[in-house]
Amino acid sequence: MSGVGASARAASAEIARSDTATKNRALLATAEAIQAMQSELSEANQRDLVAGREKGLSDAMLDRLTLTPERIQGMVEGLQQVASLPDPVGSISEMDYRPSGIQLGKMRVPLGVIGIIYESRPNVTIEAASLCLKSGNAVILRGGSEAIHSNNALAGCIQQGLEVAGLPQAVVQVVDTTDREAVGYLISMPEYVDVIVPRGGKGLIERISQDARVPVIKHLDGVCHVYIDAEADPKKALAIAENAKTRRYGVCNAMETLLVDSLVADVLLPSLQSIYDRHGVELRGCPKTQALIDCQPATEEDWSTEYLAPILSVKVVDGLDDAIQHINRYGSHHTDSIVTENYTRGRRFLREVDSASVMINASTAFADGFEYGLGAEIGISTDKIHARGPVGLVGLTSQKYVVFGDGEIREP
Amino acid sequence: MSGVGASARAASAEIARSDTATKNRALLATAEAIQAMQSELSEANQRDLVAGREKGLSDAMLDRLTLTPERIQGMVEGLQQVASLPDPVGSISEMDYRPSGIQLGKMRVPLGVIGIIYESRPNVTIEAASLCLKSGNAVILRGGSEAIHSNNALAGCIQQGLEVAGLPQAVVQVVDTTDREAVGYLISMPEYVDVIVPRGGKGLIERISQDARVPVIKHLDGVCHVYIDAEADPKKALAIAENAKTRRYGVCNAMETLLVDSLVADVLLPSLQSIYDRHGVELRGCPKTQALIDCQPATEEDWSTEYLAPILSVKVVDGLDDAIQHINRYGSHHTDSIVTENYTRGRRFLREVDSASVMINASTAFADGFEYGLGAEIGISTDKIHARGPVGLVGLTSQKYVVFGDGEIREP
Repeated sequence: MSGVGASARAASAEIARSDTATKNRALLATAEAIQAMQSELSEANQRDLVAGREKGLSDAMLDRLTLTPERIQGMVEGLQQVASLPDPVGSISEMDYRPSGIQLGKMRVPLGVIGIIYESRPNVTIEAASLCLKSGNAVILRGGSEAIHSNNALAGCIQQGLEVAGLPQAVVQVVDTTDREAVGYLISMPEYVDVIVPRGGKGLIERISQDARVPVIKHLDGVCHVYIDAEADPKKALAIAENAKTRRYGVCNAMETLLVDSLVADVLLPSLQSIYDRHGVELRGCPKTQALIDCQPATEEDWSTEYLAPILSVKVVDGLDDAIQHINRYGSHHTDSIVTENYTRGRRFLREVDSASVMINASTAFADGFEYGLGAEIGISTDKIHARGPVGLVGLTSQKYVVFGDGEIREP
Repeated sequence: MSGVGASARAASAEIARSDTATKNRALLATAEAIQAMQSELSEANQRDLVAGREKGLSDAMLDRLTLTPERIQGMVEGLQQVASLPDPVGSISEMDYRPSGIQLGKMRVPLGVIGIIYESRPNVTIEAASLCLKSGNAVILRGGSEAIHSNNALAGCIQQGLEVAGLPQAVVQVVDTTDREAVGYLISMPEYVDVIVPRGGKGLIERISQDARVPVIKHLDGVCHVYIDAEADPKKALAIAENAKTRRYGVCNAMETLLVDSLVADVLLPSLQSIYDRHGVELRGCPKTQALIDCQPATEEDWSTEYLAPILSVKVVDGLDDAIQHINRYGSHHTDSIVTENYTRGRRFLREVDSASVMINASTAFADGFEYGLGAEIGISTDKIHARGPVGLVGLTSQKYVVFGDGEIREP
């Protein structure tokens, strides 16, 4: 692994200084290679699927592992889309003169070498590689062993793309998954790896965060809330509460707990119940909720559970302070929304809720790299330092100071 | 320690939502308390100095430990200055409409709880506490055991300041240094501490980075370079090479290695030598340097050594690529400067040197929070993620996404 690390470090200097056209050429040539190699990709994927069935993988895992023609086309379009995004690298801002005479600003620069650790979905190979490459970083990819043939075939397409653009092969490296200790090395080589992005289940991410000796951009849970304030517009409240829960159940920006102000709970909860009944969403309520509508009781554990399923916990709260306290205590600092027409309470919610995305009168479903205009995202960070929320190309860079002078020296 | 952490976490919510006036009141009241308690502070400091002499601390350590009237006045002025700085918290930027109708922007928010681990200088107590408080963070301070009486006396002043402003005492906590395991706990409580800033010698910082389970904003070395290009203006080159080395020797932004292009080495090195002779700076040169001027030979180790002393290593390089390679290999990614009138080489140096501050025609001595207009700094980061270079108030915050909507829901 230290050989992989050293090659990545060397390649990172070259990709960091590559111009936008060269990086785009590599991305588009990779897309062409994928289109040309569709049958080889399907064949490699079949080998993984056969092995997976033999190993007794669940249907859900086999589904994630499968490269359908649509998913292959999705990868091609993803590469084209990343090529069309603006290049953040080298962008200079805030070049202002200081009293000493120097002109000081900031330049956006790649992070260096990024390690991505992920599980069964082979399309992550292309998504992650394209975002890292466009943002001027070298990347080391460590996918799941069950996707090894698919990942190697995709890596072959990327290598073709790099070659067409005249970029070093080590800009994107796929780690041999038969090396069981590879992950352990990857997360403990600060001399070669600048940041780790784990993508997968909570267990994987917790394990990696625990053991890493390199900074980790991580996303653990999405326990998102909608709080319906006493002065909410009922129409907006019902639409947002429906959309945030039922648009998709298995995504991290789905609402998992609904908070309703006690002043409007008796009016709104029955309407909400009929909406959720229509979608087959199971409700688990606090005692006050249970007094107003017929539902299961919520346990203490429910308040911090990411269901990723048609289940919703519902709590009646006593005003804004109670709502904010609940969210900051039980939430996962991902995305939370208030529905209100009250200016002061909206403003307080915005400032005091400690989450990566805080919204007024909008569905939590908008918390997403595409909706935020980032083009694509490598993940949604629930960390506090560096990047919070959807991490796109800019989140894979940082800023250095640049100084233009005219021979200035500093007085004692 | 988990009690300290839990109190800090609770206090962090309160300081995060405090308005600018309240935070400034706490800072100015702390300054007043320090002025009123000057004799008590000197007395407490005397106890540390007596104990330090008994323990046989070096003169340099005793000097750092001493609170002279000037240093006490410096702390008072520092507090007043931080109070006068703009408050970064709550600042909203880039509120643009998205095609969905939502209006998306970013709000600057505190990091939460910051742990500061430092060595003998008691004035760090006030510097660190004031920056954390103003940026809306709670802070846990763990100073050196040799400064315990001074630090406790200063903590008393801060507590007075917090009380005057009606802020919770746990916004600033000073850890009892008799608890030898406190540092170990402090750096491994991600549930209570969001980021660690170690301030002190390289040994301390390396140890903490190694063991921390919390992100660390760190500054290891300052191995800074000046590269004199073939097309440098000789007057600027000599002035910058003199200033970057001789302004102060013991600071991290001092030049430690001078690189001179081989095309101008024979003309410039003799002039440089006479400048450094006048200052009593010892030169250690590569073989080509030794062929041109009389000096000691530089060893491989010299190229990566932070002397913090009147010693300079000098290398003759073959053009820009050689210079950039040397800097990225042996430097510490702190601050590096090129002296040149050549547009293309200046531009390449700016982009390709991978350091927190990269300069053209300016002395490395400018790499400093005050010169950069940050007002004050908690340290100079040589990390890649989050903040690079001098870390001021803004570096102690991050950004969350905020969304203003009008009842928007996301389509499938």
